[in-house]
Amino acid sequence: MPHTSVDDHAALVAAMLAPALMPRPETVPLDDALDRVTASAVASPVDLPLFRNSQMDGYAVVAADLATLPVTLPIAGEIAARPSDPLPLLPGSAVRIMTGGVMPRGADAVVPVEDTTVDGNHVTITRPRSAGDFVRNPGSDIHRGDRLLPGGLRLASRHLAALAAAGLTTIDVVARVTVAVITTGSELVPPGVEPVLGQVFDSNGTALAAAVRAAGGVVTFRTHVLDDRDAMLAALHRATAADVILTSGGISMGDYEVVRETLEPFGARVGHVAMQPGGPQATAVFEGTPVICFPGNPVSTQLSFEVFVAPLLREVAGLPAAVRRWRPLTAGTASMAGKRQFLRGRADAEGRVTLVAGPGSHLVAGLAASTVLVIVPEQVTELAAGDSVETWEL
Amino acid sequence: MPHTSVDDHAALVAAMLAPALMPRPETVPLDDALDRVTASAVASPVDLPLFRNSQMDGYAVVAADLATLPVTLPIAGEIAARPSDPLPLLPGSAVRIMTGGVMPRGADAVVPVEDTTVDGNHVTITRPRSAGDFVRNPGSDIHRGDRLLPGGLRLASRHLAALAAAGLTTIDVVARVTVAVITTGSELVPPGVEPVLGQVFDSNGTALAAAVRAAGGVVTFRTHVLDDRDAMLAALHRATAADVILTSGGISMGDYEVVRETLEPFGARVGHVAMQPGGPQATAVFEGTPVICFPGNPVSTQLSFEVFVAPLLREVAGLPAAVRRWRPLTAGTASMAGKRQFLRGRADAEGRVTLVAGPGSHLVAGLAASTVLVIVPEQVTELAAGDSVETWEL
Repeated sequence: MPHTSVDDHAALVAAMLAPALMPRPETVPLDDALDRVTASAVASPVDLPLFRNSQMDGYAVVAADLATLPVTLPIAGEIAARPSDPLPLLPGSAVRIMTGGVMPRGADAVVPVEDTTVDGNHVTITRPRSAGDFVRNPGSDIHRGDRLLPGGLRLASRHLAALAAAGLTTIDVVARVTVAVITTGSELVPPGVEPVLGQVFDSNGTALAAAVRAAGGVVTFRTHVLDDRDAMLAALHRATAADVILTSGGISMGDYEVVRETLEPFGARVGHVAMQPGGPQATAVFEGTPVICFPGNPVSTQLSFEVFVAPLLREVAGLPAAVRRWRPLTAGTASMAGKRQFLRGRADAEGRVTLVAGPGSHLVAGLAASTVLVIVPEQVTELAAGDSVETWEL
Repeated sequence: MPHTSVDDHAALVAAMLAPALMPRPETVPLDDALDRVTASAVASPVDLPLFRNSQMDGYAVVAADLATLPVTLPIAGEIAARPSDPLPLLPGSAVRIMTGGVMPRGADAVVPVEDTTVDGNHVTITRPRSAGDFVRNPGSDIHRGDRLLPGGLRLASRHLAALAAAGLTTIDVVARVTVAVITTGSELVPPGVEPVLGQVFDSNGTALAAAVRAAGGVVTFRTHVLDDRDAMLAALHRATAADVILTSGGISMGDYEVVRETLEPFGARVGHVAMQPGGPQATAVFEGTPVICFPGNPVSTQLSFEVFVAPLLREVAGLPAAVRRWRPLTAGTASMAGKRQFLRGRADAEGRVTLVAGPGSHLVAGLAASTVLVIVPEQVTELAAGDSVETWEL
């Protein structure tokens, strides 16, 4: 791929990552399952409710005993919401029962306490009730064997609550995609170190690690290597434990391009994609693990991830795709013919978008100040104020 | 508050939690800061770029030397993207320079390599360049002291990248609200235990812990207590280390109401809110820590959290409020006068909503199957198919 389109490169990356991104189930405790995606449908192992119980604090009765009102019945006992196996209710009597209490056999309705008056061990009932009133039957929420949750569902608290209510303690979810991040470049120093002239703080490690997490993946290996092929090879070997390897830097046509030089003997496809920022792009398979290589300029690295990899990871993680919206520009701009531009913009309350910073791939503060990407198609060279442009919410 | 409105109870809970929810800063490493909220604006400690450097692979030149084209200049050396302090460029010469390489003093433009031809140690340049072309000046992205990020910003990967690029390793963010969860009820057993007749699996602990996390808080203490006042008091004492204590169950007017009985001596306000599910509600301050008490029926517990506490936690965490939308009902329903109903529904692709399950506060599977809450105001008793209702996205 010496020169290729954005769409073709995106398709290539998707095809390369497809095997690694095939959903694999893993079992996790409910307490670790928030925001994870169910690997398959879950059938309820029990009826819910588990047993016939009262929906109200009141009196369990035989509804037929309330044919003539008011009626006064002897109170035969009390049933709390507790482990209990109450005696059957005899017709012509009532049992005090709490919400959730086990309905005694024989009883078929509950009279709420507010519709009763009590005198000693007798209760007087003033309102009629039908069989079934205020009684929760087993399986009335869900029957054993019925589908409690579908597969492919991103788990919220109410889903975890339903699993717990059915007595489950674990859930099979889609395993997170594991990602190794290798940043390269002898000019880079870690944040916190005092740079000398010519050195730049490495922001790509931070950016890719956070972007992978935000897209639902998990970074299991992360390192920075200088422009040294042996160091790069060693890092790649360690990185193959992950599902996917991401690299930044070292794939231009210039000299000292450590990623290109290391991976070309392994069949890497290194070339140029018709986009800006982010032109240089490469892919490889290293010992069976797909390697997606981004250019090293910080804005290029971040945009390349958003364009080529984030949508794939988000889908596996059950996250919605980035919101795309057309917005009018507040001011015009020019764009290079033949390249898809990913400009940075700020959307305003009126739905318009203003470009921020310039097109430079080093403008990390400008990217941080933006709220949307503005997509300018390959064939467009001029945009005027008011022209509608496609934007991706960041 | 024997009887109070939903809005009044929400205002009471908000006022009680306000001191505990006052944003407090804490310093975290960048790698732990994704999705956290900046405690204050961050000024850049450096100019970005840090130094004058080349935007292209090419040749650093004096632009004035390109007045007559083509021009052939001797190549005085090479500057990689590396720590380096290059010699000043003499007029009438060129230096090979890589993207990111330190611009030598004297040079004021870069000629991209594709606009040059090289013969031995001379380069011939065919296109004119102006001073400043393809040169990145220090501070052209951001000047030292200028605002890199605003306060109150939810941190995405691009923000963390900008902080790293400026050499920062930590960030002051708003501390997460710490929450203690105490579930009560002698009828409850943990999921995974075999229940006897009258026992129910505790789903409220799972539900509240996950809901707190989803709202940006952190559960620092969680326990279940039986209907025993000494156990409840002990749990409350341990829970006061959190900013907020949540309880479920034990606040009805029935007997064996452990939360009410334990907290009333401490001035708890226990009463009834005109809503369904979720009528019984209580608040207290225990040794200086606010205690928000929900009823124990699982759907009541979950809805009470969503209505009274989740919006407050989400705001501290920089999370958007739940989306509220009006949707037409696919079928009519009746509602109790004087109570705000929170029914469960499923929104469909056409934007309509269908009620699922019934109003019962025990229907946890029904809640799990819903995608929206349907709000029926206090004064509405009848809704017909096609009527528009307010819905909250779950």
